Amino acid sequence: MRAEIISIGTELLVGSILNTNTQFLSQKLAENAIDIYHHTTVGDNPERIIESLKVAASRADLVITSGGLGPTEDDITAKCLAKFLGKPLALHRPTYRAIVRRLKIRGHSMTRLIARQCYVPGGAAILPNETGTAPGILCQTNWQGQKKWVLLLPGPPRELQPMFTDGALPLLRRLARLKKEYFIVRSVKIAGLIEAQVAPRVTDLLKLKPPLTVGIYAKPGEVELKIMAKSASKEKARQMAARVEHAIKKRFKEKVYGVDAETLSSAVGALLREKRKTLAVAESCTGGLFSNLITETPGSSAYFLGGVIAYSDKIKTALLNIDKGLIKKYGAVSAPAAKKMAQNIRALFQSDFGIGITGIAGPTGGTAKKQVGLVYIALADKKKMVCFKNQFFGNRGEIKSRSADRALDILRLELLSCRSAMSGSP
Amino acid sequence: MRAEIISIGTELLVGSILNTNTQFLSQKLAENAIDIYHHTTVGDNPERIIESLKVAASRADLVITSGGLGPTEDDITAKCLAKFLGKPLALHRPTYRAIVRRLKIRGHSMTRLIARQCYVPGGAAILPNETGTAPGILCQTNWQGQKKWVLLLPGPPRELQPMFTDGALPLLRRLARLKKEYFIVRSVKIAGLIEAQVAPRVTDLLKLKPPLTVGIYAKPGEVELKIMAKSASKEKARQMAARVEHAIKKRFKEKVYGVDAETLSSAVGALLREKRKTLAVAESCTGGLFSNLITETPGSSAYFLGGVIAYSDKIKTALLNIDKGLIKKYGAVSAPAAKKMAQNIRALFQSDFGIGITGIAGPTGGTAKKQVGLVYIALADKKKMVCFKNQFFGNRGEIKSRSADRALDILRLELLSCRSAMSGSP
Repeated sequence: MRAEIISIGTELLVGSILNTNTQFLSQKLAENAIDIYHHTTVGDNPERIIESLKVAASRADLVITSGGLGPTEDDITAKCLAKFLGKPLALHRPTYRAIVRRLKIRGHSMTRLIARQCYVPGGAAILPNETGTAPGILCQTNWQGQKKWVLLLPGPPRELQPMFTDGALPLLRRLARLKKEYFIVRSVKIAGLIEAQVAPRVTDLLKLKPPLTVGIYAKPGEVELKIMAKSASKEKARQMAARVEHAIKKRFKEKVYGVDAETLSSAVGALLREKRKTLAVAESCTGGLFSNLITETPGSSAYFLGGVIAYSDKIKTALLNIDKGLIKKYGAVSAPAAKKMAQNIRALFQSDFGIGITGIAGPTGGTAKKQVGLVYIALADKKKMVCFKNQFFGNRGEIKSRSADRALDILRLELLSCRSAMSGSP
Repeated sequence: MRAEIISIGTELLVGSILNTNTQFLSQKLAENAIDIYHHTTVGDNPERIIESLKVAASRADLVITSGGLGPTEDDITAKCLAKFLGKPLALHRPTYRAIVRRLKIRGHSMTRLIARQCYVPGGAAILPNETGTAPGILCQTNWQGQKKWVLLLPGPPRELQPMFTDGALPLLRRLARLKKEYFIVRSVKIAGLIEAQVAPRVTDLLKLKPPLTVGIYAKPGEVELKIMAKSASKEKARQMAARVEHAIKKRFKEKVYGVDAETLSSAVGALLREKRKTLAVAESCTGGLFSNLITETPGSSAYFLGGVIAYSDKIKTALLNIDKGLIKKYGAVSAPAAKKMAQNIRALFQSDFGIGITGIAGPTGGTAKKQVGLVYIALADKKKMVCFKNQFFGNRGEIKSRSADRALDILRLELLSCRSAMSGSP
């Protein structure tokens, strides 16, 4: 099967928003062994939308559009589909009733604009929208003597993504009798190394050809190695991917923090939970980001007790009991301050681990001796204390983000008892 | 002038990389009042690349490609251009010599693969690559009796961006005698309303046609109205945009929190700074997100003293002095608990304002009476106290995000002294 994606929206054409939907859909199609030769983007213009439907239908078996299903006057994708199919739009009553129910829960009522989203071409299959209003539409048509599928998805990624994965794909598999080919995708995630350090150690893997390939992707704070294995046998595809995953883990050992949907914070959470340890954090330059990341994982209250954001020196002394003399002598951005923060937050929250993060996120506040991006991260438990001096680069957001990621990784390595990796300075 | 963008690369079609080049180029074209009706992506396939050049040339005056200019065998864009033009590629000696010089500095020498990048169609203008190897190519051709421009840019964003802005645009302006047209883009940002509430009040504006248009975009926690004004006179374009901005502000009053790059958190920061007020926060369900947002703004330490993340009831009682009896009677997720959190964090940090946020971010922890998404937000100052009960929807991350945004907006409205907007319950 061959697919083609049409993104609809003038905001895409003028660069107001980044087209992440096309990447998401392309990945999912590739994972399901559906070929794709063209992406197209057009604005909210009926002639050009219809023209692009025709062009796409003439060269693909499945045409997927995203966007233009919302409630406003410039949302015209369904109308254009009706013209393309030569079938009028009709009110889809179950959708109408479902939306009325949802609105009622929120204390709103149906309006003419919202109701526009309930009109679909007759005979189309409807994909309920679990995270928004506009339903998706899947229909079949004859185009130039051939059976074609057209799938309309809403533009907001949080609506499009679950609708495609949970609604459209299973339906397509059934209706279009997709060839059973199994595609196993496995992302192996590496912390503490940059792409230029990872790539030379996997040159052999990066040269692999289908049905088994490996790609390398640099992401903020981590490097991802993506394994893709394709086979008519699910078990065989799995084995192929597992073999490569094993090879990567053997090469990078504890630097591999997780796979697939795991994040640094969920990996740390799983370790804390497994070892029945609790954590508290004293944050200065990260301003709450560390806590925000660790609480992204459901159930994190089992191991994360909380923290103090000490954004002023006054709070560092008053609430975290850091001696004024210490701050005067070494500065609030110093190893002694970070250590005291870790130690005292641990005492204050009576947690097993305490983390202290203090640094200069910039863009101002740097000096010749203490430059923007200088960040001290300390980790304390009952018996010991480590402190790492880091010089990060980037803008304010990047420095905050790298600091929080590094703190998570320091704790992760400690929980793994990789003492060798904890030979930090000073 | 009308332009069209063709992105070239199989890695785009399978979703391995996100197409940020198209957004960058689209923004720059829009800013220069160059219309754009289509984006296309094709893989590293000669037939499809040539076909897409033909299609684009038949509907645009300027065709811009990105990607496929590198040294490897699948980089075939220049070859395809030569076929499209009907002109052979020829070695461009100045480029060859420049690359040899660059390689020599790095201790490398010219190879057959690298030399591939020095072949361009005869008569083309060459755009030196300041951050990489492959030069850009700009040429003119006759297509179906009309003069068309074709611009080839390299794929890596760090090469494409400066080459387009500093090399291609000035050259195009000169060669294609681009009309000096000014494009003013202004984003007006509205908090506390959803798209379906904003749209009916701006139907007249959404219907405007170029040179003055307004678009509506729903973003997490806010709605953006984007004004675009085009004119040969910069002053006139500015006036047109300002008139619409004024009209929007008149309609939505204090719901408009800012324009362009302003965020809810920077708007709140500016108000705190202006009124010389300080803030501290006690976060439970937002887990540090509120603090993280408020500290995104450089210099936020001037007004944000810090906060406590009380992720366990023990900390709520121990550090925030919330009576155990109160939690037993009303629960940790309750208006009395939120109020105490706001009041006590204010006292603890000696700040002008205290905010307390407590709720159920989910996916677990909800009950029949207190459902996932129930969030109490309290705001205290020296004299008064307000508390809002919210029922948010969405996943864990969305509930955290909506809670933090709502808390920011409550504080913003208080700082604006829009008392009418603070008629929350209970």
